[in-house]
Amino acid sequence: MNGRRIDHTAIVVADLDEALPRYRRLFGIEPGLRQAVPDQGVEIAFLPIGDTQLELVQPTSEDSGVARFLARRGEGLHHIAVEVEDIAAELDRLDAAGIPLIDRQPRRGVHGRIAFVRPEALGGVLLELVEGSPASPPA
Amino acid sequence: MNGRRIDHTAIVVADLDEALPRYRRLFGIEPGLRQAVPDQGVEIAFLPIGDTQLELVQPTSEDSGVARFLARRGEGLHHIAVEVEDIAAELDRLDAAGIPLIDRQPRRGVHGRIAFVRPEALGGVLLELVEGSPASPPA
Repeated sequence: MNGRRIDHTAIVVADLDEALPRYRRLFGIEPGLRQAVPDQGVEIAFLPIGDTQLELVQPTSEDSGVARFLARRGEGLHHIAVEVEDIAAELDRLDAAGIPLIDRQPRRGVHGRIAFVRPEALGGVLLELVEGSPASPPA
Repeated sequence: MNGRRIDHTAIVVADLDEALPRYRRLFGIEPGLRQAVPDQGVEIAFLPIGDTQLELVQPTSEDSGVARFLARRGEGLHHIAVEVEDIAAELDRLDAAGIPLIDRQPRRGVHGRIAFVRPEALGGVLLELVEGSPASPPA
């Protein structure tokens, strides 16, 4: 992994409408993109900070993985996403190295192609790969 | 909070000697500073990535908060640290705004003055403030 940049750190929240003013008050920054992602059963909002972002994730479907995380562990840190240049090549490299992958092939995320690495690869930390830099904080 | 930069995202690990090669293999980067912090009952190592860092934290004392976290939740994401310019002024601002603080006064961290904000302030996410930029990834 080139690992040049952490694209975002994701935080599960129960209610974006309740969480966003709290983050605005603490960080003094305005949220960027907010968007429903129906196929993942979530709604997300990005808070740009430095060369990375916080991603707040609210479950919108009870059978989503995020809803199960919220029910089991409560609100909190959920995953980190690292930017890579060529996600398909990166997945091939990791797979060849025996790293356990959730996605062997990239899938479409909000900003571009993404893939998840199993938490077992990183001591319980769910890792997302994000291709390219379109997910950079808006200027 | 000026919130210009995430100084680090901290991850609790059971064993740094076991975790560091795993991170090196996944991220392809060499760890920066590694240091024991006896008064907090932990040993830490930083992995610079972009304008931020991952901080791996291993408990070295059974009565540390990190040891309790590890026993209760296992390895995983622990807290995020945001850089601020003037930590004393920032704590005053947050305190006046009714934000619950662990540290009303800054204390000395590995790189400079730090303070923690109670997780209740941020929906279960433990937040650290770090003053200045000496904690920036080594060039």
